[in-house]
Amino acid sequence: MTRVDMLPGIGVFGTGAVARALVPFLVSRGFAVRALWGRTLAKAEAAARDLTVAFYTDSIDALLLRKDVNLVFVLCAPNLHAQISVKALGIGKHVVCDRPAGLDQAEALKMVRASQYYPALISLINNSLRFLPAFARMRKAILDGYTGNPQQLSVMDVKVQMSSLLGDSYDWHCDDTMGGGTLTLVGSHVVDLVTFLTGQKALRVHGVLKTFTKSTDKVNGIRQITSPDFCTFQMEMDRGLLVTATLNNSMVVPCFHQEILVCGKLGQLVVKGGDLHGRLHNVGSKDDVIYLDVEDLECPMPPSVVPKPYIKGLSKMIGALKEAFLPVTEQMGWVKEAVQLAATFEDGQYVQAVMEAIRKSSTDRKWVDVTLLTEQPDPNPMLSAAVRRTTISLQ
Amino acid sequence: MTRVDMLPGIGVFGTGAVARALVPFLVSRGFAVRALWGRTLAKAEAAARDLTVAFYTDSIDALLLRKDVNLVFVLCAPNLHAQISVKALGIGKHVVCDRPAGLDQAEALKMVRASQYYPALISLINNSLRFLPAFARMRKAILDGYTGNPQQLSVMDVKVQMSSLLGDSYDWHCDDTMGGGTLTLVGSHVVDLVTFLTGQKALRVHGVLKTFTKSTDKVNGIRQITSPDFCTFQMEMDRGLLVTATLNNSMVVPCFHQEILVCGKLGQLVVKGGDLHGRLHNVGSKDDVIYLDVEDLECPMPPSVVPKPYIKGLSKMIGALKEAFLPVTEQMGWVKEAVQLAATFEDGQYVQAVMEAIRKSSTDRKWVDVTLLTEQPDPNPMLSAAVRRTTISLQ
Repeated sequence: MTRVDMLPGIGVFGTGAVARALVPFLVSRGFAVRALWGRTLAKAEAAARDLTVAFYTDSIDALLLRKDVNLVFVLCAPNLHAQISVKALGIGKHVVCDRPAGLDQAEALKMVRASQYYPALISLINNSLRFLPAFARMRKAILDGYTGNPQQLSVMDVKVQMSSLLGDSYDWHCDDTMGGGTLTLVGSHVVDLVTFLTGQKALRVHGVLKTFTKSTDKVNGIRQITSPDFCTFQMEMDRGLLVTATLNNSMVVPCFHQEILVCGKLGQLVVKGGDLHGRLHNVGSKDDVIYLDVEDLECPMPPSVVPKPYIKGLSKMIGALKEAFLPVTEQMGWVKEAVQLAATFEDGQYVQAVMEAIRKSSTDRKWVDVTLLTEQPDPNPMLSAAVRRTTISLQ
Repeated sequence: MTRVDMLPGIGVFGTGAVARALVPFLVSRGFAVRALWGRTLAKAEAAARDLTVAFYTDSIDALLLRKDVNLVFVLCAPNLHAQISVKALGIGKHVVCDRPAGLDQAEALKMVRASQYYPALISLINNSLRFLPAFARMRKAILDGYTGNPQQLSVMDVKVQMSSLLGDSYDWHCDDTMGGGTLTLVGSHVVDLVTFLTGQKALRVHGVLKTFTKSTDKVNGIRQITSPDFCTFQMEMDRGLLVTATLNNSMVVPCFHQEILVCGKLGQLVVKGGDLHGRLHNVGSKDDVIYLDVEDLECPMPPSVVPKPYIKGLSKMIGALKEAFLPVTEQMGWVKEAVQLAATFEDGQYVQAVMEAIRKSSTDRKWVDVTLLTEQPDPNPMLSAAVRRTTISLQ
């Protein structure tokens, strides 16, 4: 038995662009992709054929119960994430989940509880930008004090300009409540990244969400598109940093421009594309090139609509996962240090809480405090109150 | 008497960077700068010596009452603008005022009333970006439908990154209530420009103002800096356009980056620096170069802290002013068409109203409606109410 044989067998939930980008990376790193789930059998079959995966299904349980699957990637519609992740952990599978669980923090909390209950299993959120070298370097530079005291950062300005997230037919990407739209798909990465880079969490947020494109040439049936294609938000962080982000999916030509600037007392850092530049007060007007992204991906990058930085981060994260599994010989053993940069389910719940507050702010048209749910909301508060009253009157 | 002799004599209020940039332009266009006012006699003398202006004073009246001054440029602290402009019009001088009048819409309304009362006099706001060729072209492209129906624009995204606006000593630039800070000095240009480009006005705004730099190496006495060096705001315009702007004065090295993107159904336009690019749906991925700013200024540009686009616009505006005066032979006559692109005092009051709403929003932490003052606020509402009651009871 070689070491690579010790890598866990993989199951993939989803047939979309991320799933199609992921599988070749997994294979090139030596992982065996054993099974694939799609929303319909037809979609699952098509993707399995394209990606040469032997087993495909449209049943969640059929994939989860397979003995040869030890690690699942949950990359389908966000509103299914919590359900699949919790079930997977419950029957002893490692989980990497593409993003926070749809629109409901209660769902994210279920995931957190499950991950706390099964600490021996890997449970990660696929916030792959954390693994992009430019951001890892930016985080280090901030912690090392390049921009001054890391507790005294002033402004972080995030700009993402990209083309439409919608596909050729109506699917969850078009539906706000299923987790489509720029806030869930792009904003979640931004919210996570800010905390990853600075160590600060949002106290209050203000946001504006807009759906400018309500139909396209290809999606124009009875159902209107409800997922936002524009989002701007501000976050007041717990140590005084102000974050402002503008996510614009109206670019007419396929593209992905991402720029993240952070300012401190001594200087500033900016990641543009995959490069990191710095600039210091009082050191002339010279640009400090800290990291240039000249590195090519180790395996040929599949043509994909998923932005290149996400793909690159994903590739690095799979590398980290391999590092986590290779040194151990037990079937389900792994090394925590190798994936310590990755986002946990707790991080996922925080991101979900921030997105919930941004949505509420956009509706209520004012700043909203970020509140982290600590217990499941009462499904029937009137009944509970009645029960409490009865209990009291009986005493 | 040559034609150039018919150009009005100029008086300049202010000794700052804009005044110092302006005077050489005026002289090179054939205008005679007759007099200069400074806040102190020492400042006035120094500036007059540097700019070779014969007469200088620290008395507003002493400049205004000069017979050889027919047109005044009001470029001093914003909180003095209304007072000087109204007085100037009252004694028959043309006025070009650098920006809306400080922090009070009532002051701006006084200026509007004065300009309406003396329609034979020129009364303009120096929103010089309107005269920058890239913006004039952008406006035309929007009106011509390049981005689709001009009434159906979706998003406008404005980003300005520049270094500190503060000088070497404590002056009005450090003081929020005197009109210092990035909202008044940069934001006013942005608010005006959006309406100039799209023809739409703001209904509601949301804003965040921050003062991150409260003292500098050079300004660190008893008085703290109160003027904001960071501002982000959103505007909902009257035909559905959403504007988001981020003005960041934290750049550590002297610079001025300005980028304005507008998106419509058919395509988008972006001005970056002085260049205008366009991009259309369904016409491949080719960038459409609509205007490249290769033109050099007609007179050598003085080294200045004023951003280059402002200076270029200023130079163009002075050219337009010359066009307005040259064809006529009467002392105070002028041609309206030549300066019809320029911002009027009404435009100035609108900008002031928007800035007031942004400030209120930043304090109240919610969206604020933009309300245009139509009559002077009652200085003593309790007394007025008492008078009304008495009047009624007498009847």
